[in-house]
Order: sequence, then C-alpha cells, then structure tokens
Amino acid sequence: MANFGFARLAVVAPYAPHWREARSAVGAPELLLDARETATLTDAICDCTLVVGTGTLTYRKPEQPAVRLPELAPLVRQEVERGGRVAMVFGPEKHGLTREDLAHCHVLVEIPTDARQPSMNLGQAVAVCLYELASRGFSAHAGAVAKEAAASGELGARSAELERLAGVVEETMLAAGYSPGVMEAANRHDLRVLLRRLRLSAADTRRTMGLFRRILWRLRPTQNAGHGPE
Amino acid sequence: MANFGFARLAVVAPYAPHWREARSAVGAPELLLDARETATLTDAICDCTLVVGTGTLTYRKPEQPAVRLPELAPLVRQEVERGGRVAMVFGPEKHGLTREDLAHCHVLVEIPTDARQPSMNLGQAVAVCLYELASRGFSAHAGAVAKEAAASGELGARSAELERLAGVVEETMLAAGYSPGVMEAANRHDLRVLLRRLRLSAADTRRTMGLFRRILWRLRPTQNAGHGPE
Repeated sequence: MANFGFARLAVVAPYAPHWREARSAVGAPELLLDARETATLTDAICDCTLVVGTGTLTYRKPEQPAVRLPELAPLVRQEVERGGRVAMVFGPEKHGLTREDLAHCHVLVEIPTDARQPSMNLGQAVAVCLYELASRGFSAHAGAVAKEAAASGELGARSAELERLAGVVEETMLAAGYSPGVMEAANRHDLRVLLRRLRLSAADTRRTMGLFRRILWRLRPTQNAGHGPE
Repeated sequence: MANFGFARLAVVAPYAPHWREARSAVGAPELLLDARETATLTDAICDCTLVVGTGTLTYRKPEQPAVRLPELAPLVRQEVERGGRVAMVFGPEKHGLTREDLAHCHVLVEIPTDARQPSMNLGQAVAVCLYELASRGFSAHAGAVAKEAAASGELGARSAELERLAGVVEETMLAAGYSPGVMEAANRHDLRVLLRRLRLSAADTRRTMGLFRRILWRLRPTQNAGHGPE
C-alpha cells in the first residue's frame, strides 16, 4: 500500500496475537499504526460509496457485475470525481472473500491470471491491484485531491446507508409476513446484493428508506399508536 | 510466475538450505522443480538477447537506459517478435541488484512507486512486473508462440556472446597495456555496460569478436608464432 501511495487501511476481525505483534513491531510503518480495526466488514466500509471485491471467478459465478482489473480504473475515476469513496476489499489468504462478504460489494474485480494457477498470494494480489490503480493516477492522495474538487453528478449511497435501508426493508418483510423465518438469511443476502446492483444514489436511498419506514409504521398500528413514522 | 503464465525460472547462487527445502516441499510447484540453479548471473542469462534489470532508481543514477514499467511491453514485444529471448532479473530482497549485476542488463525497468516508500517486497515486485507483461499479452506461452512465427529483423546478441566478446576485448586491453592493472575491474565493468548499451546484433558481435581476436593475435606474435587467429 505504501509503495503505491495508499494510506487508509482497515483490518476486519484480525487474529489478535499477530495483529498486536505486527503493530508493535519496531519500525512498524505509519500505515499499520494508523490502520482501523473493525469487528465486521460492514463497519470497515461504512463510509464508502463504491465497494470493490477482489478474487478469482474461476470457482464461482458471481452475483455481482464483474470487471477485469485493467478495466477497473474508469469506474474508480467516475466515483472519485463525483466525490465518492472507494474501498478495495481483499479476503483472507486461505479462501478469499465469502459469499456474504461479496454481498457488500457493488462490483467484483478479477486479476487476469493463468487458468492453471488462478489463486494469488494475498500480498501480491494487493500489490498488483494498487499498482494498476496508481499507474492510472489513483492513490489515496489522488482521491483526496479529487474530493476537494469534487461532487458533480449524483453521489452514490454510502455502504452504511444501504445497510440501514436493508435493515428497514427486512423488518418490513418480517412485519408483512413476507416469507417463513427459515428464509430470512437467504432474503437478507439477496436484498444486500440487489441494493448494490441498483447503484442507488444517496437521495434514492433516503427516499426509499422513508417509504419503507411509513409502510412499517402502517404494518404495526398497535406498536406505533399515536406516533408517525420517524 | 505461475499466476501469470511464466514458466522459466533461474535461481542464481541460492542459499542452499532454503532452496533445498523449497524444492522438496510437499506440493512444490512444477515451476520450482523445473527451475535452473546457476552459480552466476552470467550463466543464468547466457541465452537471452534482452536482459531487463529491475529496481528502484531512487538511490542511484543508472548507467543503463531506464524505462518505467508501463513502457516495458513494447521493448519486450520487439525482442520476442524478432525471435529473441528476454530475461527479467530481480535482486535479493535486502539490497536489490548490485552495480555488477546491472552491468549485464540492457535496460533497467522501474516500478513507479511512492517517493516515500520506493522499496518493494521481492515477491510483490515480481507479481507487479509479470502482471504488467501478461496483461499486455506476454508470458512464457506468448513468447513460445511468437518464437515459432519469428525471426524478422536482426537478432540481438545473446548474453553469453557478449560476455565472450567482453573477455576478448579485455584480454586485448591487457595485451596492449591499455591501462594499469589497478583499473582492470573498472574497465571490465564499463565494457560490459557499453556492450549492452550498443545493442549489438549477433552478427555485429561475431564481426567485432573476429576483429579483436586478430588484434590480440597481432599483439602476441611470440605466443602465436605460426598460427593464425581462431
């Protein structure tokens, strides 16, 4: 990350002993000392408007749109130019991102690798992705600069807003008796994937949220007697 | 290397215990089992016509022409199309390639990195360089295919031929009393650098070699009495 000028690292649920050791090492780089540690991926990407999952598509058919790494830069450029914040999400070495992790991603990026050896070492995958973005003019600094110029076009919803919307829609599904309890997890997953695929703007998200809050309030007349929706 | 379809690895003077361990590991990839082990860089690159050194130029001014990684592909393409063989040379993790190593290189490639953190991890540097070449259509397989189509334009000299020429020129310098003995190492180095910079073709190299062999024969009339130059 430091090689290519990227500075904001978030580490999700790290293995505590290794993480402590890495951070307290003599000469640990600033990047590591400044890294955020979060309990969930949801927390790590909460302020991001474009979440890019990484991995090989050899072993699965993705539920999200997929691009090859050399085609990622234009998407990132568009997002940064309109003032958004982009997250690149890397999975653990052993198995990569899970299907649940990927449900938080708007798009998947695949590093074009040899079919006989598609799985990359984590550090090398990070280096290759960030080299690709940096060599086309993106880095933490480029991002920061663009954010100041910023904010033309309609800004996409932040991940945290999408999660709140998903929560309200899910509550509504339950309140409406939309599906049996056994389907809850599957519905939650499909809903997450759908909300990212729609690429809702921040304004879309607020409007849709308002609608579902009202529906929810209507569905629960006794609980809400005398109060309007929030 | 396997991720990006490169198959020919040569390892120069490896640390024996680690090397044995890596090769004999359960599931060691074919690439490692097939790797050549050589005592010197000269041996490793002997059949190559374009030798590309890698590293950061932050700490030194190179004696060879330098290009940035995104500009390397056209040079490689040209060489492969005329039937040449290209070597990418990576130095050890700690200090990279030495000045002596670089004297065997025709060109230096620099990965564009952040000025505050120019030094890369070896494995990541390899991944980034090979990703760059593979994503522009080069890999061991691409090379092999091109070689069959091959052989337009004048083929560059192989490294081994350049080394032989350097040896004869050096002998000539000594025989001619060109410089005091204390300068020998410096002359050898400058000569290596010069011969790569000239980009001599195989035919140029043979002709030049013939010339210097004759000169050498003339300079040593007593040793060579009765025999012509080889």
